[in-house]
Amino acid sequence: MLETLKQRVYDANMQLPKLGLVTFTWGNVSAIDRQQGLFVIKPSGVAYEQLRPQDMVVVNLQGQVVEGDLNPSSDTPTHAYLYRHFLTIGAITHTHSPWAVAFAAAEMDIPAVSTTQADTFYGDIPCAPALNEQQINTAYELNTGKVIVDEFNKRQLDPDAVPAVLVSQHGPFTWGESAEKSVYNAKVLEVSAEIAYHSLQLTHRNSHLPQYLLDKHYYRKHGQHAYYGQHSAEVKGHAAHA
Amino acid sequence: MLETLKQRVYDANMQLPKLGLVTFTWGNVSAIDRQQGLFVIKPSGVAYEQLRPQDMVVVNLQGQVVEGDLNPSSDTPTHAYLYRHFLTIGAITHTHSPWAVAFAAAEMDIPAVSTTQADTFYGDIPCAPALNEQQINTAYELNTGKVIVDEFNKRQLDPDAVPAVLVSQHGPFTWGESAEKSVYNAKVLEVSAEIAYHSLQLTHRNSHLPQYLLDKHYYRKHGQHAYYGQHSAEVKGHAAHA
Amino acid sequence: MLETLKQRVYDANMQLPKLGLVTFTWGNVSAIDRQQGLFVIKPSGVAYEQLRPQDMVVVNLQGQVVEGDLNPSSDTPTHAYLYRHFLTIGAITHTHSPWAVAFAAAEMDIPAVSTTQADTFYGDIPCAPALNEQQINTAYELNTGKVIVDEFNKRQLDPDAVPAVLVSQHGPFTWGESAEKSVYNAKVLEVSAEIAYHSLQLTHRNSHLPQYLLDKHYYRKHGQHAYYGQHSAEVKGHAAHA
Amino acid sequence: MLETLKQRVYDANMQLPKLGLVTFTWGNVSAIDRQQGLFVIKPSGVAYEQLRPQDMVVVNLQGQVVEGDLNPSSDTPTHAYLYRHFLTIGAITHTHSPWAVAFAAAEMDIPAVSTTQADTFYGDIPCAPALNEQQINTAYELNTGKVIVDEFNKRQLDPDAVPAVLVSQHGPFTWGESAEKSVYNAKVLEVSAEIAYHSLQLTHRNSHLPQYLLDKHYYRKHGQHAYYGQHSAEVKGHAAHA
Repeated sequence: MLETLKQRVYDANMQLPKLGLVTFTWGNVSAIDRQQGLFVIKPSGVAYEQLRPQDMVVVNLQGQVVEGDLNPSSDTPTHAYLYRHFLTIGAITHTHSPWAVAFAAAEMDIPAVSTTQADTFYGDIPCAPALNEQQINTAYELNTGKVIVDEFNKRQLDPDAVPAVLVSQHGPFTWGESAEKSVYNAKVLEVSAEIAYHSLQLTHRNSHLPQYLLDKHYYRKHGQHAYYGQHSAEVKGHAAHA
Repeated sequence: MLETLKQRVYDANMQLPKLGLVTFTWGNVSAIDRQQGLFVIKPSGVAYEQLRPQDMVVVNLQGQVVEGDLNPSSDTPTHAYLYRHFLTIGAITHTHSPWAVAFAAAEMDIPAVSTTQADTFYGDIPCAPALNEQQINTAYELNTGKVIVDEFNKRQLDPDAVPAVLVSQHGPFTWGESAEKSVYNAKVLEVSAEIAYHSLQLTHRNSHLPQYLLDKHYYRKHGQHAYYGQHSAEVKGHAAHA
Repeated sequence: MLETLKQRVYDANMQLPKLGLVTFTWGNVSAIDRQQGLFVIKPSGVAYEQLRPQDMVVVNLQGQVVEGDLNPSSDTPTHAYLYRHFLTIGAITHTHSPWAVAFAAAEMDIPAVSTTQADTFYGDIPCAPALNEQQINTAYELNTGKVIVDEFNKRQLDPDAVPAVLVSQHGPFTWGESAEKSVYNAKVLEVSAEIAYHSLQLTHRNSHLPQYLLDKHYYRKHGQHAYYGQHSAEVKGHAAHA
Repeated sequence: MLETLKQRVYDANMQLPKLGLVTFTWGNVSAIDRQQGLFVIKPSGVAYEQLRPQDMVVVNLQGQVVEGDLNPSSDTPTHAYLYRHFLTIGAITHTHSPWAVAFAAAEMDIPAVSTTQADTFYGDIPCAPALNEQQINTAYELNTGKVIVDEFNKRQLDPDAVPAVLVSQHGPFTWGESAEKSVYNAKVLEVSAEIAYHSLQLTHRNSHLPQYLLDKHYYRKHGQHAYYGQHSAEVKGHAAHA
C-alpha cells in the first residue's frame, strides 16, 4: 500500500540526521496521497539507524492508522489537521532543530533579515501563540495544528508562500509539495534562524528586508517568472528543488 | 565479574565521544548492580580509543575497588554517594560538555524554556551550589555528591523526574535506569542548555514553560499514560528509551 | 572549450561544501580567461553531488552563454560586471556562509580585529549599501555588481588588497587571482566574521588593528617583501597560496 | 638528524586539523632537544595534507636553520625566544583557533570560570599586551616572544603552571613538556575560551573560581599529590597526559 510514497517518506526522514536537524528520534516527516486521502508518516520514537521503508505507517485524514504494525508519530494529529486545512501541501516535516527552537522558546518570529530566508520564505516565519491550558489538556496535538492554521488565517498568510511555522515553546513545522521539499524547508528555516540570531545580536534591532527585495528574491525562485535553476528534463534529483 | 554490565558500561562510555559530549578523557559512565551492591565505572584518564570492556573497574558502594587493574575514575566517590542516596537510579554519566559547563560556570539553572527539555526533564535542571573551602579540602568528590543530594532534598526534587544536575563551576551529572539512558540524558541536557542559552540572549528573561505544558510533555513520554514511542516487543535498542 | 579552466572551476566549486561554506546549492565559483574574454561558471541550482566538470558554463563578459547546455548561475551578471571593472581579478566566489550573512544582514563591515583577517584582507571587509527599489527591479544582479564597484571606488579600496565584499541583506562575494584563491578568501572571510562577532560581543566596541599591525601582517604574506610560506618550485598545490 | 623528534613534531602538527584547531595552514608545533640546543618546527605555509615528517625543519636557539630544505614557520623567532626564556618547556604550539582569537582580539584574559580550565591551567590565561609600532617594525616575531615573557615576569606567572598565553590582536601560544602535550593544551585553551565566552554572556561578570577550587583541580592532575589518571606502565599514549 503506497509503497512508492513510503520509500520517499523514508528517504526524507533519513535526510534529517544527515542535515544535522535531529538529535535521537526528535523529528518526523509525512507525505500525503491526496487522491486516496491517506498519508504516510514515520513511526513514533524509532531510531533512524533502525528505520526501514516498510515501517512507515499509513494514516487517514482523521489520523487513524490504516496500515502498519507500529504506532505512528505522536504528532500525527497535527499533521492530519494541517493536511485538512492547508489543501495544497503535499508533505510536512517536524524537528527540534536548536536554532529554530531557540526562537520558539523566545516566542519570536524569525525575521526575514537576509535573502537566504527570502529565497524560500516570503517574509518572516511566524511564531504561533502558545497553547493555553485547555488546548493542551484536551487534544494537544490536534490543537497544535489548530493554532498554526488560526495564526495563518489571522495574519492572512499563504502557506505555500510561507511554508513554515514555529509553535511557541515547542519548535518548527515546515511543509512543501513533496517530502523532500519539506525537509529542504526545515533546513532553510534552521539556517535562517541561525543567521537572524546573530544579526539581532549585532544590531539589537529587527532589520527586515524591504518588500521589493523580498519580492525579488522570492520570485527569482518561485512562480512563473522564476529564473533560478534549471527548468529542463536534463537535471534531476536535488536540483529540481534548489 | 559483572561481564555483561562491563560491556554495557563500556558501550555507554564509547557513546560519549560519538555524541560530541567529551573532549579527550573528560567524561565517565558507571552503572550499578543493585543486588550485589557493586558498580562498574570507567578507569581514570584512559583515552577512549584505547578503552576496552575489560578495563572497566568494579567498585563497591563505599567506592573501594573490588576488581580491576586500573584506577577507577577520580569521580568515583561522587558516583558512590549518588548511588547510596538516589536509590532508584541505575547509572550515572558525568561530562564537561561545553554548553552545560557554561551554565555551571555562571551558577545558573538551565531553565525549562522548551518542550525539548520537558520531554526528558520535569522542569529546570538545578545548579547545585559551589562547594565551600572545607568541603573541597576534605573529601572533594564525596562532598560533590553530597551537595547534589542536599540540593535535591532542599528543592524537594525527585531524581527520577529530574535526572540531572549541574555542579557549580564544574559541570553536569546525569543519571537514569541504565547506562545508555544516563548518556541519553547527558545529550538532552547539552542540547537543552544550548537552546536555553540562545533563548535567554534573545529575550533576556527566563521564559519558563507553564506547568501544564511541562506536565503534558513530560507525561507524554513517562508514566503509565505515556503514549510516545512503541510499547511492544517489536522495537528494540535505542527506540526503547526514545 | 576552456577544458582546463572548467576543471579548475569545478574543483573550486567542490571545495565549497568541503569547507563548510555552502548549504544545498547556495554558492558558485567562476574564473576568467582574460585573453579570450570568457569566463567559466557553475550552472544554476545544480546539486554539488551531481555536478560534473563538463557542466560548467562558458560565458562572455556581457554575461551571454557561449557554450553549455545548462543555465549559468543566476548571479552571472554580477560576476560579469566585477570582471569588467576589477581588471586584475581572475576568479570570483559567492556563498551564503552564515557568519558572513549575519554581518550582511546587520549591514555592518567585518572589522579587522585580528591578524587572522589581516593576513588576507588589508583592513575591514566593506559592506556595500543595500540596493534601492529601482536597482532591484531593473537589473538586479548587474546592479549588485555595480554597488560593489561603486563602494570600492567611493572608499578608494584596491580590490587586490581587499578581495571581498558583503552585499547588504544578501551575502559575501570574494575574488582572487585563481578559482582556488577566491574560495580560500571566502573561507578566511567566514572565519574572520565568526571571530569579529564574538570579539564584538565581548567588548561591544570595534577594536580595529592599528595600521602598523595591519601593514605588518598583510605584507608578511603579500608583495615583494613577503616572507611567509615557501617561494620555491618544490612546494605545490594548496601551499602555493597559503 | 633528530629523526625521532621530527616524527613526533610531525604527528603533533597533524593533530591540529583533527582537533579542529586550524584552518588551512594556520598553526605550527615545534619541540626542542635541550641537550643539543636545537628545535624542530613545521615549515611555513605547507598544507597539512602534503606535510611529511622529513619536511620538518631543524633550527638552533638563535632561530637559524641547521637542516631542512624548506623555510621554517615564520613564527620561528617567537618559538626560539620562548625556548631561551622558558627553560623547562619542551614544545610550543601556535594556532588561530577562533574562540581563543576572539579573546585575543578583545584583548581579554580567558578567565578561569570552571574546572575545565583549572584542570590544565592554574588560573586565568593571560592576554599579553599588543606590540607597539616599533616592536612590530623591528623584529616582529622575536618581539612577540618578548612581550609574552615580559608579561609572565610582570604577573609573576610560572609558565609550567599556566602553559598558555594570548597575544593581543593575534592569537594563542601554548607549550608543554612534549609536542603532544602542547597540542593538548591548545585544545583545552580553545574549549576553555568557548565556555568562558558563553558564561560571560550569561552573567556579564567574570565569575572566577575561588583559589581553593583552583588549587584542588589543578593539583588533582599535577604535582606529587596528583591522583587523576593512571600512574603505571600499563597505560600508554594519550592516557599518559590526560
